[in-house]
Amino acid sequence: MRIDLNADLGESFGRWELGDDEALLAIVTSANIACGFHAGDPTVLRRACRGAVRTGAAIGAQVGYRDLAGFGRRFIDAAPEELADDVLYQIGALDGIARASGGRVAYVKPHGALYNAIVHHEAQAGAVAAAVRAVAPGLPVLGLPGSAWLRAAEEAGLRPVREAFADRAYTPQGTLVPRREPGAVLHDPDEIAERCVRIVRGEPIAAVDGTPVRIGAESLCVHGDTPGAVETAQAVAKALRAEGMVLAPFAGGGPEEGRGGDG
Amino acid sequence: MRIDLNADLGESFGRWELGDDEALLAIVTSANIACGFHAGDPTVLRRACRGAVRTGAAIGAQVGYRDLAGFGRRFIDAAPEELADDVLYQIGALDGIARASGGRVAYVKPHGALYNAIVHHEAQAGAVAAAVRAVAPGLPVLGLPGSAWLRAAEEAGLRPVREAFADRAYTPQGTLVPRREPGAVLHDPDEIAERCVRIVRGEPIAAVDGTPVRIGAESLCVHGDTPGAVETAQAVAKALRAEGMVLAPFAGGGPEEGRGGDG
Amino acid sequence: MRIDLNADLGESFGRWELGDDEALLAIVTSANIACGFHAGDPTVLRRACRGAVRTGAAIGAQVGYRDLAGFGRRFIDAAPEELADDVLYQIGALDGIARASGGRVAYVKPHGALYNAIVHHEAQAGAVAAAVRAVAPGLPVLGLPGSAWLRAAEEAGLRPVREAFADRAYTPQGTLVPRREPGAVLHDPDEIAERCVRIVRGEPIAAVDGTPVRIGAESLCVHGDTPGAVETAQAVAKALRAEGMVLAPFAGGGPEEGRGGDG
Amino acid sequence: MRIDLNADLGESFGRWELGDDEALLAIVTSANIACGFHAGDPTVLRRACRGAVRTGAAIGAQVGYRDLAGFGRRFIDAAPEELADDVLYQIGALDGIARASGGRVAYVKPHGALYNAIVHHEAQAGAVAAAVRAVAPGLPVLGLPGSAWLRAAEEAGLRPVREAFADRAYTPQGTLVPRREPGAVLHDPDEIAERCVRIVRGEPIAAVDGTPVRIGAESLCVHGDTPGAVETAQAVAKALRAEGMVLAPFAGGGPEEGRGGDG
Repeated sequence: MRIDLNADLGESFGRWELGDDEALLAIVTSANIACGFHAGDPTVLRRACRGAVRTGAAIGAQVGYRDLAGFGRRFIDAAPEELADDVLYQIGALDGIARASGGRVAYVKPHGALYNAIVHHEAQAGAVAAAVRAVAPGLPVLGLPGSAWLRAAEEAGLRPVREAFADRAYTPQGTLVPRREPGAVLHDPDEIAERCVRIVRGEPIAAVDGTPVRIGAESLCVHGDTPGAVETAQAVAKALRAEGMVLAPFAGGGPEEGRGGDG
Repeated sequence: MRIDLNADLGESFGRWELGDDEALLAIVTSANIACGFHAGDPTVLRRACRGAVRTGAAIGAQVGYRDLAGFGRRFIDAAPEELADDVLYQIGALDGIARASGGRVAYVKPHGALYNAIVHHEAQAGAVAAAVRAVAPGLPVLGLPGSAWLRAAEEAGLRPVREAFADRAYTPQGTLVPRREPGAVLHDPDEIAERCVRIVRGEPIAAVDGTPVRIGAESLCVHGDTPGAVETAQAVAKALRAEGMVLAPFAGGGPEEGRGGDG
Repeated sequence: MRIDLNADLGESFGRWELGDDEALLAIVTSANIACGFHAGDPTVLRRACRGAVRTGAAIGAQVGYRDLAGFGRRFIDAAPEELADDVLYQIGALDGIARASGGRVAYVKPHGALYNAIVHHEAQAGAVAAAVRAVAPGLPVLGLPGSAWLRAAEEAGLRPVREAFADRAYTPQGTLVPRREPGAVLHDPDEIAERCVRIVRGEPIAAVDGTPVRIGAESLCVHGDTPGAVETAQAVAKALRAEGMVLAPFAGGGPEEGRGGDG
Repeated sequence: MRIDLNADLGESFGRWELGDDEALLAIVTSANIACGFHAGDPTVLRRACRGAVRTGAAIGAQVGYRDLAGFGRRFIDAAPEELADDVLYQIGALDGIARASGGRVAYVKPHGALYNAIVHHEAQAGAVAAAVRAVAPGLPVLGLPGSAWLRAAEEAGLRPVREAFADRAYTPQGTLVPRREPGAVLHDPDEIAERCVRIVRGEPIAAVDGTPVRIGAESLCVHGDTPGAVETAQAVAKALRAEGMVLAPFAGGGPEEGRGGDG
């Protein structure tokens, strides 16, 4: 059984450091690298791309709203054409840096408020999908199962890749429990790791109310910018490998052999 | 005899319009398109790239300092590595938009204060050259004859392309008369056109003090964002064609046949 | 009868010019000056403040979302506290420039998407009102009659000032016809001027369907950044004066005598 | 004997945190608060201003170049008029937030590359001084003894206040040893504290080559954004108090009694 682990990288900016890219690159098989609109100056991006090429992680363009002050976490009612052009620009920028680092952008994952908006916002979802198709037809894209975004991506001839969130509670319907509700975020590394193993095996996990729910996913998202996040990601990777699962990128990139060991 | 005409495009930003890109695209064979750091939002860039693809103008990445408020016209003492990464990012971003528009970035021309700085600033010149090589080895680059920039580009294996300025006075040594000095900028379209013809023929022109001076150039830069500039560019193009010269891009792009007529 | 004429100024940015501030300052009694978040670099703001002090126009802080690329015309789902702090910052910045120019910020008017959002968005309306109160208790604020914004302002102890739009069609209920609908924007200067006279007299005007509707307003908003806008504003000012009406700021500022004549 | 301790605060931005403002506010008597151009979003600034009002620290406007990506640490060749307007804008913005927090901007200290540039750059030094005078005549300003900046400030009628750097080595001439040279930065808290005591007493300290050198200063700058910096600042404050010195702002603000104890 193969599974991909993805995490957000390249989210420092200038003097400001965020996340431990080095530590995450020793764990993940897909690196969602910021593209400068919500985070990530070009030097940060180049360091992240070089790191991903070194460890064999697939490079993903983590595109977002143009909003450094809000870290891309605020919905912006951008017109679809503007949004599409912003996405094109970001993918191109990261791809330039990836190529100069010996890699390529191998997939796209929207960030923050854009990720959340295009779960339902058809016009913005279509705009992002159209932008990806325009610059890289057929590219895989990461998203939430059942989202308008993955539907739009599929219609645009892209390859939709479903992801699950290692540290988030799910409703009985298989959607995420909103962050503001109690129990929405899990903290126990062992519990999180065990849930990940079940998801990869295709077994049900316990929803927030205890109901068994099955979450289909080709990639598991782990977070890196909160205290303890790197340790949790390590625990997840270790548990998956202990079950004989192969951690490998869903997109481009090389086999696990080329990667940095056990984390 | 072949010659290239280049001008700056894509310098609007959001609500703010600058220059007449449509009119210039009917004239020039090379479009120096801004990359978002000194001007040019992604929608503006996409429109400019589509226009260039339509008229057959070569798409050039007009890279600059990160300075929207100063329009890239203020020297910034950026560290070489940072500057190189900023340049990489800009080239990649424009190339993404160019590819989505059916073209590619075919050359690079630094903008504004960066252009001026790297006439002499060896470290920044080397950084820009290294960035171009990293993302597009062998790409042609535009610059001032005799500049540190063209030397660094050549050493980096890029193709240095010398340009002359249609509307600027030259010293007897063949350097530009600084803008702040009297007579630095020419305004008479006929005079400018006639000088351009002489430059392309390899004949000397009159320096600011009357001394004949020979300016070697494979491209002529015309400006588009000042009153009367489009008319001057049209006069230049018309005069060159009247002498039987062929206007064609120095880089990539197609033959003149595909272009928009007589301007 | 007294009435105020307000218009947006200070919306250039760096190399990019927008609107004819000089011409507008010869007409309006209140200058809604941008504060740098949607438009207006500090040098532009200083020129606008000096101009307003010279003509006696009241200086208003035209606060907006932090969105240069979108010119503040895109809704941003900012948290109330963040929005309040952004508004505080903008008012303070413009007030610093106004003081250095011999004036003060005399009122506040939200811009673009923020203006539209807080017609209904209670949380953002309350945040803007709280910010104004925190820095300038009791300050007058401009807004749409019946808006959540003017209600929140009144509750915050500010002085709500209702404005009407000289060049916009109204529904029979007295709300604005949305721009995207036919007939939403009026273009005939004489018709616009005549409507303004009726509004100031307290007489009904014709709604978009012909129904008479009464629009109460202490200020008339004229636009300056579209073709013909300055001429329309001049026509309005001339018509009002011809009826013996006195054009004077609703806030601070001096009497009409000090102003620049007949426009 | 009285002395002021100043440190940089408010240098977080959006999602990115930098420095421990809370810990520093328990130590310093003057808070150099960023103004949004090199760091500091409005919410960060408001929190810093409220903190300073609570502890009685004087609020200083730490003005810088418009350069978030470079954290204001890169020289920008801004025209004097533009720079002056940028400074005005920043002071006004922080003053708006300070007033809303129950305080006022009580002094100005340039940041980073601007601080360094105006040690020698007469035109920029004059521009900053002119800006401060325009918005707050007579305000105290912090700077390096002997700098063009303090001279320009004095000529502009401002009150020049000399500062010394607690953790930096000095040349025999009393200038700072450049950071890139060996021994330029001191790390031992006890050594730093002892040097501070000597400076306040007016006694000579050892220059980098051992020569005794006398550093006159009314304020000591301590840093907060490097590992161990807060501990060093605490050691300095404790040593000064142990010698019976009174820590108090040089500008506005209240007496030490109102402050947060021993650090």
